[in-house]
Amino acid sequence: MTAFRDLLETFDNQFPDRDYKIEIEYPEFTSVCPKTGQPDFGTLTITYTPRKKCVELKSLKLYLQSFRNEGIFYEHVTNSILDDLVAVIEPAWLRIEAAFRPRGGMTETVSAQHTAAI
Amino acid sequence: MTAFRDLLETFDNQFPDRDYKIEIEYPEFTSVCPKTGQPDFGTLTITYTPRKKCVELKSLKLYLQSFRNEGIFYEHVTNSILDDLVAVIEPAWLRIEAAFRPRGGMTETVSAQHTAAI
Amino acid sequence: MTAFRDLLETFDNQFPDRDYKIEIEYPEFTSVCPKTGQPDFGTLTITYTPRKKCVELKSLKLYLQSFRNEGIFYEHVTNSILDDLVAVIEPAWLRIEAAFRPRGGMTETVSAQHTAAI
Amino acid sequence: MTAFRDLLETFDNQFPDRDYKIEIEYPEFTSVCPKTGQPDFGTLTITYTPRKKCVELKSLKLYLQSFRNEGIFYEHVTNSILDDLVAVIEPAWLRIEAAFRPRGGMTETVSAQHTAAI
Amino acid sequence: MTAFRDLLETFDNQFPDRDYKIEIEYPEFTSVCPKTGQPDFGTLTITYTPRKKCVELKSLKLYLQSFRNEGIFYEHVTNSILDDLVAVIEPAWLRIEAAFRPRGGMTETVSAQHTAAI
Amino acid sequence: MTAFRDLLETFDNQFPDRDYKIEIEYPEFTSVCPKTGQPDFGTLTITYTPRKKCVELKSLKLYLQSFRNEGIFYEHVTNSILDDLVAVIEPAWLRIEAAFRPRGGMTETVSAQHTAAI
Amino acid sequence: MTAFRDLLETFDNQFPDRDYKIEIEYPEFTSVCPKTGQPDFGTLTITYTPRKKCVELKSLKLYLQSFRNEGIFYEHVTNSILDDLVAVIEPAWLRIEAAFRPRGGMTETVSAQHTAAI
Amino acid sequence: MTAFRDLLETFDNQFPDRDYKIEIEYPEFTSVCPKTGQPDFGTLTITYTPRKKCVELKSLKLYLQSFRNEGIFYEHVTNSILDDLVAVIEPAWLRIEAAFRPRGGMTETVSAQHTAAI
Amino acid sequence: MTAFRDLLETFDNQFPDRDYKIEIEYPEFTSVCPKTGQPDFGTLTITYTPRKKCVELKSLKLYLQSFRNEGIFYEHVTNSILDDLVAVIEPAWLRIEAAFRPRGGMTETVSAQHTAAI
Amino acid sequence: MTAFRDLLETFDNQFPDRDYKIEIEYPEFTSVCPKTGQPDFGTLTITYTPRKKCVELKSLKLYLQSFRNEGIFYEHVTNSILDDLVAVIEPAWLRIEAAFRPRGGMTETVSAQHTAAI
Repeated sequence: MTAFRDLLETFDNQFPDRDYKIEIEYPEFTSVCPKTGQPDFGTLTITYTPRKKCVELKSLKLYLQSFRNEGIFYEHVTNSILDDLVAVIEPAWLRIEAAFRPRGGMTETVSAQHTAAI
Repeated sequence: MTAFRDLLETFDNQFPDRDYKIEIEYPEFTSVCPKTGQPDFGTLTITYTPRKKCVELKSLKLYLQSFRNEGIFYEHVTNSILDDLVAVIEPAWLRIEAAFRPRGGMTETVSAQHTAAI
Repeated sequence: MTAFRDLLETFDNQFPDRDYKIEIEYPEFTSVCPKTGQPDFGTLTITYTPRKKCVELKSLKLYLQSFRNEGIFYEHVTNSILDDLVAVIEPAWLRIEAAFRPRGGMTETVSAQHTAAI
Repeated sequence: MTAFRDLLETFDNQFPDRDYKIEIEYPEFTSVCPKTGQPDFGTLTITYTPRKKCVELKSLKLYLQSFRNEGIFYEHVTNSILDDLVAVIEPAWLRIEAAFRPRGGMTETVSAQHTAAI
Repeated sequence: MTAFRDLLETFDNQFPDRDYKIEIEYPEFTSVCPKTGQPDFGTLTITYTPRKKCVELKSLKLYLQSFRNEGIFYEHVTNSILDDLVAVIEPAWLRIEAAFRPRGGMTETVSAQHTAAI
Repeated sequence: MTAFRDLLETFDNQFPDRDYKIEIEYPEFTSVCPKTGQPDFGTLTITYTPRKKCVELKSLKLYLQSFRNEGIFYEHVTNSILDDLVAVIEPAWLRIEAAFRPRGGMTETVSAQHTAAI
Repeated sequence: MTAFRDLLETFDNQFPDRDYKIEIEYPEFTSVCPKTGQPDFGTLTITYTPRKKCVELKSLKLYLQSFRNEGIFYEHVTNSILDDLVAVIEPAWLRIEAAFRPRGGMTETVSAQHTAAI
Repeated sequence: MTAFRDLLETFDNQFPDRDYKIEIEYPEFTSVCPKTGQPDFGTLTITYTPRKKCVELKSLKLYLQSFRNEGIFYEHVTNSILDDLVAVIEPAWLRIEAAFRPRGGMTETVSAQHTAAI
Repeated sequence: MTAFRDLLETFDNQFPDRDYKIEIEYPEFTSVCPKTGQPDFGTLTITYTPRKKCVELKSLKLYLQSFRNEGIFYEHVTNSILDDLVAVIEPAWLRIEAAFRPRGGMTETVSAQHTAAI
Repeated sequence: MTAFRDLLETFDNQFPDRDYKIEIEYPEFTSVCPKTGQPDFGTLTITYTPRKKCVELKSLKLYLQSFRNEGIFYEHVTNSILDDLVAVIEPAWLRIEAAFRPRGGMTETVSAQHTAAI
């Protein structure tokens, strides 16, 4: 878990008996490359089917803004955010896609998914 | 059910023996955030396969316009409109996608679907 | 069947042993709303796999132009054109999608498909 | 002047000796048609060169949101907002473009401009 | 003048002392080719600066719909609509652009403008 | 002049007292490279203000199709078509732009214009 | 088979043990309508998984250019090119899509596929 | 001047006798709103005609990255960067456009320009 | 294997128990056609699910830049890069798509995939 | 002048009495950064009005390909190509725009123009 997990807040899902989908796009993610000290930028897309809880949007924004001055690699940050969100929301499933801006002519996108055990 | 369900009118499906699909896009949905009092805006896409009834378009527009000054959250309004439409149209299946405009740099889209029991 | 079915002509499919696909897009469809008397406009996309016959393009255009001053609803015109085309072409399958231009801020698209009994 | 002009607040332009340009796009404008009672929607683009004052963004948003349930025509609302902004900001010049969403197959855009007397 | 000019209605311009611009896009124009009897389709864009009068939108739509079954050439219809609008609105200037859909692989667009004598 | 000029036909301009503009786009132009014998393809855009005559569209298409198996360079074909059109239409001005498809990774566009002497 | 099949040349597939895919897009296909004598234009997309042979690109271009002055219908030319390519390349599977430019307001696309018997 | 001006480095313009133009787009600008403490994001476009000096790209990137955790308003940051660049490059003219991402449904773009006295 | 395989470096995958996906787009690939000596250009898209190792981005860039002056055919270079990457990363699966720029009016795209034996 | 100027060949302009324009887009330009040794990539757009001579396209391609392994800065290469083209073609005017691909999040475009003395 990251140091920022506690920033995430939830509210009760009022339709727990229906399998519906929530998608949140956040094009303002930024962190710092631990190797070069240079800022990284990316668009996060988080999609999930809630069970008992939904993530509160403002707390999610504050949580994601906390990485602003953190030194962390693409693969690490994507998987760590997935871990935090799954622990707090306990969704039926949750998927995260992180599309980073080009560096050295290359563009990397990392995608990871969690599905709840039945 | 919402207070506006009675506004929805239907007409008889003249091709009840064929599984066909009707899709309605409404980019002018607006309601009010119950927390901040600020207006929300979104594009609704409603897709369904009728059984005996189709929704009458003008009544659907008046129904959706009724939310203009209602305080209601994204997830709630999407699921409630689904409930109203299913109750009135009794379709084979119906899907609603509500794509809201960005707030605080974040864009949320909620999708829910109903399939009739056989 | 509509009054215009007889306008449709066919020619022999020269490759009856191969399952191939023909798609025809016609963005100039127009008819009249029977309720308001106002003109409707739409783009028809017809896709099918021929068996013994293909539809002749010029006759298809004249057939579709015949609806120009007809009063007919979206769902009705889409399903009726499907019926006419299936009766005349006798295809393995045929799909029609009718995407109408926005009215009152709403855009409706109707899709229907026929598959031949084996 | 409209009833909402007093909602507009300004702050001091810190670069009054330079001719620079500020452009604000607001795609969430909505009012009501005084004739039909139906909601109208549009995108406002406001561009100006400040002299001593700049408009404060949050107050501008609240000002524009005040038209939500006002009955007012396209040409009237565009020219009235221009009048209010010019009176409050006293800019070197200010231009407003209001692009409304289609009604009855027609899309109207109204543009007006004010240039300060020398 | 065309037979339909009398359908055009106007309302008083409430800002006669300001040079502002109104642009109306109508993508549903259709008439008939007098040579082939085939329907033509086009998008009209009308832009003008009013003096004492503005054109009423609904009357403009009915006026333009009147050409639906008229046999008239591209150049003729564009210039005739310009003549009608100028006669009825008496604008400071008015421009019309008519972009017709492709025929025989060719796409024609006709533009004409009127400027009032001072 | 080219060998095909006589194919061009005109009709009388019914609005000779108005400076209006006709634009014709033809994306199906093809000729042959005289050096390599390979086919060339391009999109022609012809724009002009008529005086007494307008070019008849079908004759223009047949004229342009005549170059199909002619060996002629980009610059030559563009200027020669300009010469033919000016001689036949005698316009106030006429402009031709010929945008050819990429060859060897390079895309060439040739534009030429004629303005009538006063 | 067409008269041009012998123009097609192949080279040995150096990776015959791997199921990979080659896609070739050719937007410069042109032939002649046998009914009207008018030129047709289209974009061919050929996709296949090679077994022992790949088609040599320059020979493919010359082969496709051979149809330039041939009178042949849409459905016929698409299926005939499929036959020629399959006979010469002997692929695991091959698909051809031919998207022709609009005629009379209609756009036709023909798609056909061959899968090798196991 | 800002605290970061000294980070900017230049190199000699090797073509001082020619009026040419250099445009640099930087879509990764970020600073902090001094009022809310929330991060802002924008795309800067810097265009100039050099006289004796050109700005070195890597130093420009480090300079712009220095604003990452600075609290500064849109109008202020745009004009201050203009001042720094003009002081260091001494160009014939220089223009900066800063297009910030939407906040509260509004998008602001600030543009400023400097022209050297002759 | 190619002569450049040793340039590829890896780092340990910190989430080896999760099936996630890494996609890298490189639009700056260039090599030389062995037949004509002319440069080729293409966009490579590499997608894989790591097991124990991820490819280090900078080493991947240097590896891909090594082909700059190599004479190698489209199909060969795509399959060889696939072989090198699979040997070094030992992924659960890896896919490469190489979309080359048009030559002689034709555009070729080669795609190949490797899936690890279980 | 560069070492490659002699590669440029011309042919006689057959329409020297008309002011027309030739535009050539070349999206495959590549050279090497003299500082980092890394390859640079860009799209060149060359536009000119010929006087007595036009540049021969194939020779232009070979000339531009000669920079493939040259170490040269953005501003230098753009101005040097301008000098070479002007010396060889002796045009009425010639403009070159070089849009390079992003490096370190920044995109630079250099434009320069030559006008012949009268």
